[in-house]
Amino acid sequence: MNQTHTQVGIIGAGPAGLLLAQLLHLQGIDSVVLENRSRERVESRQRAGLLEQTTVDLLRQAGASARLDQLGLVHEGVLLNYNGKRHRIALKELTGGSCVTIYSQTEIVKDLINTRLAAGGMLLFEAEATKLEGLDTDRPTIHYTHEGESHTLTCDFVAGCDGFHGISRASVPPELLTIYDKTYPYCWLGIIARVPPSTHELIYAYHENGFALHSMRSPELSRLYVQCALTDTLEDWPDERIWNELKIRLGTPGWTLQEGPILEKSITPMRSFVSEPMQFDRLYLAGDAAHIVPPTGGKGLNMAVSDTKNLFEALWLWYKEQNTRLLEGYTAACSRRVWRVQDFSNYMTELLHKQPDKAAFDQQLQKSKFDLLTNSEAASRVIAENYVGLASKRASEAVEFPIIPPTV
Amino acid sequence: MNQTHTQVGIIGAGPAGLLLAQLLHLQGIDSVVLENRSRERVESRQRAGLLEQTTVDLLRQAGASARLDQLGLVHEGVLLNYNGKRHRIALKELTGGSCVTIYSQTEIVKDLINTRLAAGGMLLFEAEATKLEGLDTDRPTIHYTHEGESHTLTCDFVAGCDGFHGISRASVPPELLTIYDKTYPYCWLGIIARVPPSTHELIYAYHENGFALHSMRSPELSRLYVQCALTDTLEDWPDERIWNELKIRLGTPGWTLQEGPILEKSITPMRSFVSEPMQFDRLYLAGDAAHIVPPTGGKGLNMAVSDTKNLFEALWLWYKEQNTRLLEGYTAACSRRVWRVQDFSNYMTELLHKQPDKAAFDQQLQKSKFDLLTNSEAASRVIAENYVGLASKRASEAVEFPIIPPTV
Repeated sequence: MNQTHTQVGIIGAGPAGLLLAQLLHLQGIDSVVLENRSRERVESRQRAGLLEQTTVDLLRQAGASARLDQLGLVHEGVLLNYNGKRHRIALKELTGGSCVTIYSQTEIVKDLINTRLAAGGMLLFEAEATKLEGLDTDRPTIHYTHEGESHTLTCDFVAGCDGFHGISRASVPPELLTIYDKTYPYCWLGIIARVPPSTHELIYAYHENGFALHSMRSPELSRLYVQCALTDTLEDWPDERIWNELKIRLGTPGWTLQEGPILEKSITPMRSFVSEPMQFDRLYLAGDAAHIVPPTGGKGLNMAVSDTKNLFEALWLWYKEQNTRLLEGYTAACSRRVWRVQDFSNYMTELLHKQPDKAAFDQQLQKSKFDLLTNSEAASRVIAENYVGLASKRASEAVEFPIIPPTV
Repeated sequence: MNQTHTQVGIIGAGPAGLLLAQLLHLQGIDSVVLENRSRERVESRQRAGLLEQTTVDLLRQAGASARLDQLGLVHEGVLLNYNGKRHRIALKELTGGSCVTIYSQTEIVKDLINTRLAAGGMLLFEAEATKLEGLDTDRPTIHYTHEGESHTLTCDFVAGCDGFHGISRASVPPELLTIYDKTYPYCWLGIIARVPPSTHELIYAYHENGFALHSMRSPELSRLYVQCALTDTLEDWPDERIWNELKIRLGTPGWTLQEGPILEKSITPMRSFVSEPMQFDRLYLAGDAAHIVPPTGGKGLNMAVSDTKNLFEALWLWYKEQNTRLLEGYTAACSRRVWRVQDFSNYMTELLHKQPDKAAFDQQLQKSKFDLLTNSEAASRVIAENYVGLASKRASEAVEFPIIPPTV
């Protein structure tokens, strides 16, 4: 049995855990990051990345943005199709200057791992947390296994950044949790194809056949999605069917979808989930450990980063002056943004998907909501504000946050 | 058996039928209006009245606005409460000058009846249409009874303005109709009280106890509503309970609700309904005969008036130059606005009512939608635009309407 002590024990080496570790490090606060998967696995999990400006800003402050600044694609607008008719949401114009940046979560994780290791910070892969103990004391313990041996990590605080299926939320007595949940009766089939994107800006398409999305990973790689049935498997979707549906659903007059070899295929279910509160004694949850959204609004990563910022500021204030104000206010500080993001993600999901389970009346309203969007600048502005992440700014204003401390 | 002939046979002496008759009259087109209820009954049915500017304009063009211009209350804003916290939607500011006018439908009907009778137009009360015949010929016949005798009215066109339960829509073979329908699991209990309104602008309130609305009929009469259960009867709501709930639900710090004697009490169910198309051979439906909305957005009357304008213009073009273009496009001309109004009315209804049938997740989103409204000017603007009736203007732009002909 090997024992280690640190100030903040972080479970999970996703964007939330790694970014938290780095922000703390820059303020001289020690942490240990435990990740149950291998580095190779973590660095190869394909995840989309649509970054709000505040997410980009925080990665810069963390000193982990060199590749992002070089490779990130800044988008000033986004395209919405309705049965082949295109409407552009001019993000930059409508929000007074805000944009989004396309840079995949996979790359962010690589960058943060390199930053962490370069700083000499402790980061263990294939280290599986097995039990949390003493959360109601000032010295909680994380039990974990690593290279076949059992270990303990004692700390002042535990940051649960280990995702929806992780041990952190599962360690909370269920009766203390309020769960809000919604599943959607369809999935996304996603592909990565080796072909330059056929569009400069993302295309979200509603079509009678179902939703489709044209995104991009890089100037050489396209990222594309089609709505499929809950019961569909990859066998139901040979390459030809995928390209055929993409062409139909994304099609607009005068525009051509370029095809290329499909490198990856996967099916993602759609779910909205919120668990509250986000703190129990000395355990603080961040990101998917506390809440997940359907991917339609591109918000999952940004919400995790926003939680991380709140948690970092709260820990920083505590270590600086033993002030517990932000630690106590952590759930409240996150909650308002969490729900705005849930509402926006649900709105985008229901606006853009074929919803065979809905009544004919509701399907007509869905069509009319597009009519509103294409005719009211104010309605487009509401989408633009939520898409670029105004909600984040406002949530920050809701409590008096300290100005983020200067970094080295 | 008495036979009469006219150009347009109009069934129903509500705002749609009466306004259509007057607009046609001013262009020298004859009509007969058949109403199955008594004049006294028609003039005493209490109906709210929140008039879009285009509705006011059309009543002026019809020469029926003398009392409206004198007694109508122009409102430049509307108040939304969420659990006691108030948010004002500045209609005039947000829409670049548009307002709404409070003037009850009951008074509009009185004004239009007086206008019709003063013009010497034919308007029969207690005249019950019993059968429509020959709609697929150029000489349809309306069979009706009046003062104990059977009559027939032949005409070029039949205007079905006889409401949701009328004979007009019922005369269409059901297989030709597409019905869209939604009912809500709550009702409105409405009162008229002899007490000056406690507010200058309408207050729509969401409260954990349920929805409430403070409106007004005149400077002396208040019009108030509370959400009640589907199974509630008037016996469940003695005056004291009504005032008590109104105070709780409408309450904001520093504001007092004035009480007064309750003159009328009634319970209204909430329903969304659309029947399409709105035309069958020589029968044209307008207003509640074709569609109804829950009262939350104040749109029922305005939608009926908008239909009437479209139908009047179509008939006018036909009589002027036998051009069938607008008659053929009648459903399409109305449909877009119908659905925008349905979407807005459904949105306002679901935003403002306690929805015990909804999942906890959806109830949290409802709360977050208020958060959006109170923090995003664009979100308030979307409500303002729909509330004052931008949708109407846009629907008119969608087809090339003739400029409404000059009236005498």
